[in-house]
Amino acid sequence: MAVRLPLGFEIAGVTAGLKASGKPDLGLVYSPYPLAWALTSTDNLVKAPCVSRNRSRYTSRAAVRGIVVNSGNANCATGERGIWDNEDMAGAVAAALALARVQDMLTASTGVIGEPLPVDRIRQAVPALTGALGDDSGAFADAILTTDTAPKQVAATVDGGGRILGIAKGSGMIHPNMATMLAFILTDVDVSQDALRAMWPGIVERTFNQITVDGDTSTNDMAIVLSSRQLAADVHAFADALEEVAGKLARKIARDGEGAEHLLSVRVTGARTGPEARDAARTVAGSALVKTAVHGADPNWGRILAAIGRSSAISDLANLRIALQGVTVYQGVARPFDRQALSERLRAEEILIEVDLAAGESVGEAWGCDLSPAYVRINADYTT
Amino acid sequence: MAVRLPLGFEIAGVTAGLKASGKPDLGLVYSPYPLAWALTSTDNLVKAPCVSRNRSRYTSRAAVRGIVVNSGNANCATGERGIWDNEDMAGAVAAALALARVQDMLTASTGVIGEPLPVDRIRQAVPALTGALGDDSGAFADAILTTDTAPKQVAATVDGGGRILGIAKGSGMIHPNMATMLAFILTDVDVSQDALRAMWPGIVERTFNQITVDGDTSTNDMAIVLSSRQLAADVHAFADALEEVAGKLARKIARDGEGAEHLLSVRVTGARTGPEARDAARTVAGSALVKTAVHGADPNWGRILAAIGRSSAISDLANLRIALQGVTVYQGVARPFDRQALSERLRAEEILIEVDLAAGESVGEAWGCDLSPAYVRINADYTT
Repeated sequence: MAVRLPLGFEIAGVTAGLKASGKPDLGLVYSPYPLAWALTSTDNLVKAPCVSRNRSRYTSRAAVRGIVVNSGNANCATGERGIWDNEDMAGAVAAALALARVQDMLTASTGVIGEPLPVDRIRQAVPALTGALGDDSGAFADAILTTDTAPKQVAATVDGGGRILGIAKGSGMIHPNMATMLAFILTDVDVSQDALRAMWPGIVERTFNQITVDGDTSTNDMAIVLSSRQLAADVHAFADALEEVAGKLARKIARDGEGAEHLLSVRVTGARTGPEARDAARTVAGSALVKTAVHGADPNWGRILAAIGRSSAISDLANLRIALQGVTVYQGVARPFDRQALSERLRAEEILIEVDLAAGESVGEAWGCDLSPAYVRINADYTT
Repeated sequence: MAVRLPLGFEIAGVTAGLKASGKPDLGLVYSPYPLAWALTSTDNLVKAPCVSRNRSRYTSRAAVRGIVVNSGNANCATGERGIWDNEDMAGAVAAALALARVQDMLTASTGVIGEPLPVDRIRQAVPALTGALGDDSGAFADAILTTDTAPKQVAATVDGGGRILGIAKGSGMIHPNMATMLAFILTDVDVSQDALRAMWPGIVERTFNQITVDGDTSTNDMAIVLSSRQLAADVHAFADALEEVAGKLARKIARDGEGAEHLLSVRVTGARTGPEARDAARTVAGSALVKTAVHGADPNWGRILAAIGRSSAISDLANLRIALQGVTVYQGVARPFDRQALSERLRAEEILIEVDLAAGESVGEAWGCDLSPAYVRINADYTT
């Protein structure tokens, strides 16, 4: 996929030999300019060294120059060695690019937990990696994948010519807050670091934190936005475009959930508060029983109702409404519907569940996927 | 299975025609004596009428005379009609037994949500049901099953000759607090209602609330203990025996989780508090990635570590220890182990995961099962 890069970025992806499959596994985003940046990362108590290192850099508020990402190995739970291996990965790239400080290069790793990172292979691949720097965002998008079935890129433009390009990987261990998910969003819009950091957590809250594949959260997740600040634009227009890119990436990740055949969108209206709306939507999207029903094209709205009931949202049960693919199946009581026809409509690639809690004015959305036998097969056999 | 009933109880199970399979679906526990009782029931905001009715009776603190249970239909989300149908079910049995008050008969329903209860069939079956009252606990155990593959009975005796008999059903929508799970525990031990109600929530907290199959919680769950108070016994010995029965039933439910091939036991030590230990154990037992790894006999301890990290438990990560089937695989860092040999040991029917959080003295246990393609098949096709 050819996507025009925002100004002030170079990008690359190569094969370092970390994956048994021999697929690309080392990616790099680089800028000759100091980059304004914003970060959200995993809440898991167990954090990979890349997450801790980026967080520490984040606190310093200094600009960065890029990020090096490997797939095939999470370099997590690898002890003190993992910390030095992570530092080595950054150092090798910083040296090849003649950066003033190794700290200017961020890191990210994704893959199996608990295996030592073969950092020698990464070091050996760094000359090829920096040599490949150019405008092929697809090579980077390929290099960060693990069990994803497709690369994930989303682009948008902002009035005035500014660009936003988002690149992400899923696809298991996906759950709020921040799943085994990496998202890198590049922009040339001139937004200040303060403004970027002010808008980013809210955008992540409504997008990446609203997708769930299996309820497991990872040790390595991060979503980063990097700006080269080359082109002026209205900050509100930029924020809207950034949220659009993040939302589309989030839905791509959910759609490509391990073993998934359907994208499941849950729209909750009538909640007392936004957090209650989002929690209700997430609980429905994350329910194993709802997910298996979607897989079976089964209009089993009782499971949706039960999931809402165990969420934190207060609802008016006498007026609560549930619709599947636009067909109201419950409103205080069961509504008659053509089960056969609705089951047919549940075979669509995108499934929409709408819930009106009838308790207020707030809305929220979440995205997930069906739970299939393929999910089990993929995960029953990941390391051995 | 022939189990001697505690004194002062009669029991029955018959076929009322609520299940398409034609299997038994209507059960009754009855006592000629006023029964002391204790109840825990679902926290789901959406509650079936049977749950609300029993709770209301519970608040009155009056004794009861028994409970009528149907399977094949949860009579939940069935509107006002569901309330009257539930009342009718109790009324038909109370009339047949010539009880002074219909409120003396508790109710429980389990099965599909949102379909009207065919209460006429239940009414027609009540003479056969009350006529069948006797000592065949197996007939009752069969009549309360849904997707369970086996009936679940556990018996214990208390010094002095007192008996405890527990009968339960699983097996999907199993999660704290109180899953699609019904548990009825009968005893002839003379324990006061106050003592029973004081000990029961703690026992449930450590047993039924520590099992998880799929993270979904139901609208109909309850665990009830009924005492005919015929035989004297030490109250502490009774509490121990009651916890043993509840724990064994809980493990039977987890082992019979939908599609499960393994019972997964998680023992957490070294936690700062009991609730943290239990939460960590539950989080590991409930992780889709841990469950699929167990299904695949894959010693993927990184997923266990990641699950602990997203639980509420504080741990000392440098000293945290993980053992699989008695083999230490992680202690601050990865420990070498024979992957092939351990994978073989993970093919056992019971899988033990031990985690030492190295942060305190508290312990906790949880039980679950593997996640298999069969779970998906069972649930993708439950109503249609």
